[in-house]
Amino acid sequence: MGYRYFDDQRLWDLTVEVFTRNGYSRSDCEDIANVLLASDRMGIESHGVQRMKLYTHSLEIGRIKRGAKSEIVRETPVSAVIDAHDAIGQPVSVAAMQMAIDKAKKAGVGIVVVRDSNHYGIAGYYAKMAADQGLLGISMTNTEALVVPTFGKQPMMGTNPIAVSMPGTPHPFHLDMATSVVPAGKMEVYAKAGKTLPGDWLMNSDGSPSYDPNDFLRIRATKSLGGIFPVGGEGETNSGHKGYGLSLLVELFCGILSGGRTSNEVRVVPNVDKVCHFFMAVDYSIFGDKEQMEKRFSQYLEDIRNSALADGQTRIYTHGDKAYAHMARVAEEGVKVNDKTYDEIVKICQDLGIDPAEYLIEKAGPQA
Amino acid sequence: MGYRYFDDQRLWDLTVEVFTRNGYSRSDCEDIANVLLASDRMGIESHGVQRMKLYTHSLEIGRIKRGAKSEIVRETPVSAVIDAHDAIGQPVSVAAMQMAIDKAKKAGVGIVVVRDSNHYGIAGYYAKMAADQGLLGISMTNTEALVVPTFGKQPMMGTNPIAVSMPGTPHPFHLDMATSVVPAGKMEVYAKAGKTLPGDWLMNSDGSPSYDPNDFLRIRATKSLGGIFPVGGEGETNSGHKGYGLSLLVELFCGILSGGRTSNEVRVVPNVDKVCHFFMAVDYSIFGDKEQMEKRFSQYLEDIRNSALADGQTRIYTHGDKAYAHMARVAEEGVKVNDKTYDEIVKICQDLGIDPAEYLIEKAGPQA
Repeated sequence: MGYRYFDDQRLWDLTVEVFTRNGYSRSDCEDIANVLLASDRMGIESHGVQRMKLYTHSLEIGRIKRGAKSEIVRETPVSAVIDAHDAIGQPVSVAAMQMAIDKAKKAGVGIVVVRDSNHYGIAGYYAKMAADQGLLGISMTNTEALVVPTFGKQPMMGTNPIAVSMPGTPHPFHLDMATSVVPAGKMEVYAKAGKTLPGDWLMNSDGSPSYDPNDFLRIRATKSLGGIFPVGGEGETNSGHKGYGLSLLVELFCGILSGGRTSNEVRVVPNVDKVCHFFMAVDYSIFGDKEQMEKRFSQYLEDIRNSALADGQTRIYTHGDKAYAHMARVAEEGVKVNDKTYDEIVKICQDLGIDPAEYLIEKAGPQA
Repeated sequence: MGYRYFDDQRLWDLTVEVFTRNGYSRSDCEDIANVLLASDRMGIESHGVQRMKLYTHSLEIGRIKRGAKSEIVRETPVSAVIDAHDAIGQPVSVAAMQMAIDKAKKAGVGIVVVRDSNHYGIAGYYAKMAADQGLLGISMTNTEALVVPTFGKQPMMGTNPIAVSMPGTPHPFHLDMATSVVPAGKMEVYAKAGKTLPGDWLMNSDGSPSYDPNDFLRIRATKSLGGIFPVGGEGETNSGHKGYGLSLLVELFCGILSGGRTSNEVRVVPNVDKVCHFFMAVDYSIFGDKEQMEKRFSQYLEDIRNSALADGQTRIYTHGDKAYAHMARVAEEGVKVNDKTYDEIVKICQDLGIDPAEYLIEKAGPQA
């Protein structure tokens, strides 16, 4: 599989154009483009512009309901519940996180949960929204069921990411992790590249471990037994029950608190999704001097980066180091797009009467 | 190593007596005994009455300051910061969690952080306090640094447990997990039993993996390089960076928000501990009908228990199943005490002029 690199700002413009032609307002289109391009700019290829195909397909089959208006169904000074009414995931999620942020600025803490939504992109985008406004941010979402419980072989939980972002120097602490050993997108990347899985990630339908990413694609497409292991892997020896527990935590915070669905009830038919999200912001000035806390946490992370290296290693990262370094390079290098995604984008443009050449401006890519 | 089984209520009485003789009030003694015995009653031997030796030793060397009074240093309707002033960990932690619960009952959410404290026992005790009062409870603590960051070999984080408890049927969802692949106590259990470690848990001082639990004891005692891996294990292949990230999250919530210390600064000299804790309660009626949420989450967990078994497995557990089953049996069976702990308890009794025979009432243990 080959790759090309394209100008990130023009891909953003293209995303806005694609959703404008799908009937979305300028504001909605900007939310969608911001979330997708944030992913590409952070180097998370699986959740960037390659998701345009999923979203346009979801619009075609009615999984994303055109013109759906989300609704605040319950609210207190520290919380809200939003019913997305099957709207596209990004605008309602941006609004929900902003609501959590606004509540936190007044009350110290804000928690907003969303039900009956669609794929919302990277969890980290929403956590980062809070950090960019000087608050601690948390976001989680459930997904379709792709993960097996410890000692089970039926996928009952989603890959259920947890993202946390805390302001600091030289950049926020930024954790964005699936509670499965790997996210589904990583399986897709290995499948596209024709590579064997390098770790104990997957249980096959017959219950045995598998190292073939195509087994994952088949399990997902046919809704068969088997699935991804939780963080910690198979069984309890290396604490797979911990990843499993964290995954259930995400189900509780997203599917249950919102009055929505757990992952085993999400996308059970192709044209109904109904994932649920969780957003939380904390104005940590309720605990003390903000600048002091940011400084101390940044120093701690710096001490870790400078601590003794394991043998054969050249660098210790803390969470966000890779993503922020990628963001700093991307305007120069361009966004990495694989050939399959390129073809999909060209097709979407043709279907909508957009000239792809106007938006797909090639860049040189990373220089050695 | 042999085991005996003792009446749990009399062990509780003994714990109260030991701390009464150490000058603690009845209320403080009950808090300490409640937390220690809750651990034994749940089957978590490492954090039960065997901790009496640690606590009496800590009192002797001044790590736990006798007569220290904790102080609320900052407070809002949704939050508080408590300085424990080096007091024994349980009473201040019980008070902090109750404060979080009381705030949540009024405001929907309560978060209380504690700095400059001592070992507080099982994180799950505090989360369960909220669940027992009909709320969602969360607790975390940092610890002395025993865990290596991904690609590093210097212990920079604690084993940093996260506990979450949510009311339900037949018992609360109850997650209580170290963010390291195993807690330190599990290493001690393997060392006492003379067993080889069954998983990839430990990095030795020279950077190689070790399966000898005595290497862990030596690393801890001599503050050497090496340590326990985060959940997900060594490197990034099976997502060790996720456990590492969760561990940093606990450092942020405990050591940073409280204005206290991160684990690398905890117990750097034997007579100063200064761990920090985090307590949160949520009255989920702010999101909807509580009974409905409890019912739906309980049903989801039951569906998971009844889902397809992995090959060779006989049962799928959800979090809390094992602990609550143990609690139901313990009055009949007694609390499991290993010979070393038994000797330690007898010694503590002798030092304080307590007749151990009055309190150590043997029970039959588990019947086949």
